[in-house]
Amino acid sequence: MEEVKIIALKESVLEDNDKDAQNLREELKANGTCLLNLMSSPGSGKTTTLLALNRAFAGRLKWGVMEADIDSAVDALTMQQAGVPSVQLHTGGMCHLDADMTRQGIRALGLEGAELIVLENVGNLVCPAEFDTGAAINMTILSVPEGDDKPAKYPLMYETCDILVVNKIDALPVFDFDRERMERYARKCNPDIEIYYISAKTGEGVDALADALVEKVKAWCK
Amino acid sequence: MEEVKIIALKESVLEDNDKDAQNLREELKANGTCLLNLMSSPGSGKTTTLLALNRAFAGRLKWGVMEADIDSAVDALTMQQAGVPSVQLHTGGMCHLDADMTRQGIRALGLEGAELIVLENVGNLVCPAEFDTGAAINMTILSVPEGDDKPAKYPLMYETCDILVVNKIDALPVFDFDRERMERYARKCNPDIEIYYISAKTGEGVDALADALVEKVKAWCK
Repeated sequence: MEEVKIIALKESVLEDNDKDAQNLREELKANGTCLLNLMSSPGSGKTTTLLALNRAFAGRLKWGVMEADIDSAVDALTMQQAGVPSVQLHTGGMCHLDADMTRQGIRALGLEGAELIVLENVGNLVCPAEFDTGAAINMTILSVPEGDDKPAKYPLMYETCDILVVNKIDALPVFDFDRERMERYARKCNPDIEIYYISAKTGEGVDALADALVEKVKAWCK
Repeated sequence: MEEVKIIALKESVLEDNDKDAQNLREELKANGTCLLNLMSSPGSGKTTTLLALNRAFAGRLKWGVMEADIDSAVDALTMQQAGVPSVQLHTGGMCHLDADMTRQGIRALGLEGAELIVLENVGNLVCPAEFDTGAAINMTILSVPEGDDKPAKYPLMYETCDILVVNKIDALPVFDFDRERMERYARKCNPDIEIYYISAKTGEGVDALADALVEKVKAWCK
């Protein structure tokens, strides 16, 4: 079985996460690296979306992934097998990552000259939204089967995010999912949120999302 | 618009939640009330499952529901409209409930002679599993679209739960979900976990789950 690098994160002792996150963001900016914090419920399709994005990036970006999980290393292995440099971060039961834990992950990934580093956060709509990781872009995935009311129930996640990806649109025919209702709730949390509809499974809509991300990353790294 | 009772929970100051939870469990046992703590990811179908169970209970239990949410009161209203006494508990951003918060909810519900009180916990597979609420039964829902690997990624939830309900089985044809793989992972966390397959939407499998719950509740309340 292929090996994957597993990092056991240490709980940070810093008192001011916001300040630490701002420092990390500035360090990454100076380094020409864009950090994207990817958040969602468990099972929304974070890893599958990253695999689809990898195909759509088509070599336009030098990028790597940090897969945060409470346990298991399946996601980092999946990404690595797809040719994306990856590390698995184990949080030891912690429900989110803060800036210091993110920095530990970036060091472990050790990807010199990366334009984009994606942090796949722990599957959780609550706690990760409360901690600035130092990311330049916060992105959340809402999958169709979860229902159109999630922005009403977990508003901070949608306030925090720049991009909302609605995944599993191939399953729209079998679920009651009202796009207008969902968008109304989401824009109430964040009027500027950018919304993309995709199926990571079939590839529908993925190119438009990939193009937007490449553009944002290149602008940040300039 | 119909009114629903909304309780803003106070963060508890007790140091020993395990002891407090054990006290609450004993108080409820003496009172002939069974507390069921229902946990899952956001959008797995907790409220829809409770609605389906209400139909299947068919008056066999005197019961009520506490709907915990960070914000919004839609779930308590839904249950109340179905004739189930309900309160909405607002956690004020907190990602889980502990025993003291649960006790606040039970007092607010004020349901004299209830045989079953269900706590619908915050949608989160991580934090709620870490806090004993004083429940006699811990039950989790895994919906088919979330994928068969969730017990491998969030093991504590499955270790903690007595009952695993696999919901949205009507969507099995459109998702890759390997029952055997999921059961293997789940039983690795908890060899004694009872597994029920249902569709809260179509009603398939709900009667068997309702019968098992009625039996457990009656046994506890004896």
